[in-house]
Amino acid sequence: MQNLTVALDAMGGDVGPRVTVPAAVQALLHFPELKVILVGDRNIITSQLSQLGYSDHSRLRIVHSDQVISNSEKPSLALRHHLDSSMSLAIGLVAEGEAQACVSSGNTGALMALSRYRLKSLPGINRPALISALPTASGSKTWILDLGANVSCDAETLFQFAVMGSALAQEHLGRPARVAILNIGEEDIKGNDCVKYCADMLKQTSSLHFIGNIEGNQLFHDIADVVVCDGFVGNVCLKTCEGTAQFFLDKLKRKVFGSSIKGWIAKKFFSDLFIELETMNPDQYNGASLLGLRGIVVKSHGSADVVAFSHAIKEAVLEIKRQVPSRISERLETVLLERHY
Amino acid sequence: MQNLTVALDAMGGDVGPRVTVPAAVQALLHFPELKVILVGDRNIITSQLSQLGYSDHSRLRIVHSDQVISNSEKPSLALRHHLDSSMSLAIGLVAEGEAQACVSSGNTGALMALSRYRLKSLPGINRPALISALPTASGSKTWILDLGANVSCDAETLFQFAVMGSALAQEHLGRPARVAILNIGEEDIKGNDCVKYCADMLKQTSSLHFIGNIEGNQLFHDIADVVVCDGFVGNVCLKTCEGTAQFFLDKLKRKVFGSSIKGWIAKKFFSDLFIELETMNPDQYNGASLLGLRGIVVKSHGSADVVAFSHAIKEAVLEIKRQVPSRISERLETVLLERHY
Repeated sequence: MQNLTVALDAMGGDVGPRVTVPAAVQALLHFPELKVILVGDRNIITSQLSQLGYSDHSRLRIVHSDQVISNSEKPSLALRHHLDSSMSLAIGLVAEGEAQACVSSGNTGALMALSRYRLKSLPGINRPALISALPTASGSKTWILDLGANVSCDAETLFQFAVMGSALAQEHLGRPARVAILNIGEEDIKGNDCVKYCADMLKQTSSLHFIGNIEGNQLFHDIADVVVCDGFVGNVCLKTCEGTAQFFLDKLKRKVFGSSIKGWIAKKFFSDLFIELETMNPDQYNGASLLGLRGIVVKSHGSADVVAFSHAIKEAVLEIKRQVPSRISERLETVLLERHY
Repeated sequence: MQNLTVALDAMGGDVGPRVTVPAAVQALLHFPELKVILVGDRNIITSQLSQLGYSDHSRLRIVHSDQVISNSEKPSLALRHHLDSSMSLAIGLVAEGEAQACVSSGNTGALMALSRYRLKSLPGINRPALISALPTASGSKTWILDLGANVSCDAETLFQFAVMGSALAQEHLGRPARVAILNIGEEDIKGNDCVKYCADMLKQTSSLHFIGNIEGNQLFHDIADVVVCDGFVGNVCLKTCEGTAQFFLDKLKRKVFGSSIKGWIAKKFFSDLFIELETMNPDQYNGASLLGLRGIVVKSHGSADVVAFSHAIKEAVLEIKRQVPSRISERLETVLLERHY
């Protein structure tokens, strides 16, 4: 049977163990085959566990660390001074084969730097990338990468993002993923040199299902399964989604609470609606994965609550079951073979 | 008294004269001092005017053109083959001083190329930029540029965007505008070299009120009046706003129409809400301006209806009254003086 152990950076995020420990317990209840290693302050974690009344130590163990990386820490300093931090030790457990995946809601830059240092990139991958999925109007998902791990990319790196995203999405979808480039127009002549060169490379790669360019207003239209862009554009895009959604939701709430619509049915209707709209923020609710490493690393939002952090653990479990790093390597090999012959 | 004549590309956009001519008539009724020159097919325009019963030819005249630039036309070909098109002639009327502003809902790339060719850039401006305003939670506006006229920019060009945006916003606000750079984090260390160099330049310029970096999820928070970015990032950002807003609105509509909430008050409440949310799309409803030219050019959305095209004409009138190109030149002079001493 496949080993299914997830190492959790219990101290990461805005809240820390009060979120990560209950989320771990929820995940253990949900996946009977799962084991969890909680990395962080043993006293705090133990106290949280006893409050929750959880005592099945056959599936849960604690690795102690009294170092936490702050959100303002520079990645270079995290590498120099925080190799014993909860985040670093959690990633280390994956590198040593003690766990098959790591989840953290800590500092993204430090997570990227420590993951590259401890796990290394897959052969043929220049830079790991952050990926997450947006909902679409038809109920499907669109994966988008990179979301901020790489502020500038060349065409080759963008191409590798397409390979990685395509491998991940295909595992979810069970069919080849439609790949698009995020651009400022649908036509071939649109955009900067980088996206144009990447489009040329993708057109010549028959093992990827490239469908062309996609614009920001088409992201929710279920046209593509995977959308590639550099980390600057992807980060602005994802955060703009988040900001626009929040702006609409706030406007709607003010309008509803200031209205003459009263009564039980209306209240129920709106509270359902608000919950549904709020849980649509992909970064907040599903976590993002760092793809392209020799191991699985899932990044949860810093302000994630128990539900959101559980989602991130669930994503890690799915990626272990689907052996995502191996799938990416295989996909990369196919693409490289195609290029050489 | 100030001349107040606007030249309209009557043939531009997805609908053409059936939108542009009624919008022109509405604007004439709204601004008693306004004169309009409609550029396009004389027969079609005359027929539209007679259908509307408008006959005050002291304030409206037609300049005939039987050439229209299609939306798929390359800018370079527009310059080579379409100098007699309705768009080109409308811009020409501004260059010749017959009109003080031009409005078109035609091909953006062609509008940019023809405007640069016929009007020329202001001294000290490398590249004109497209600007539009987003609504904020507090009811104010945030202007954002560039929205797609320049797919890649150096730090100096971004800096000039800050100067131009600041001049435009100050005319609207009546106070110095807060300027920010769109980035992937608030901290100085975030982003690519271009935004970092631009931040350094802005910090050294006391005549601009630079407040630092802003992220995509803060655009609606009324933190900045002007947000600068390259045209690739700006275009993705604006279209992502549009896409997210539409996605939410569609979801809300499906939910409401499929719900048990009935009755007149609820229907009125939701139809008001839908109209309010729909008119929040800035590109669609307010038009965008091309800043940095020796003349005023306003770009309306290709799918603009009569109300939206009227907004674009109104924006042109306001920019004439506020003498925006002169204000930009003055602001640029102040900044250059500060740099040299």
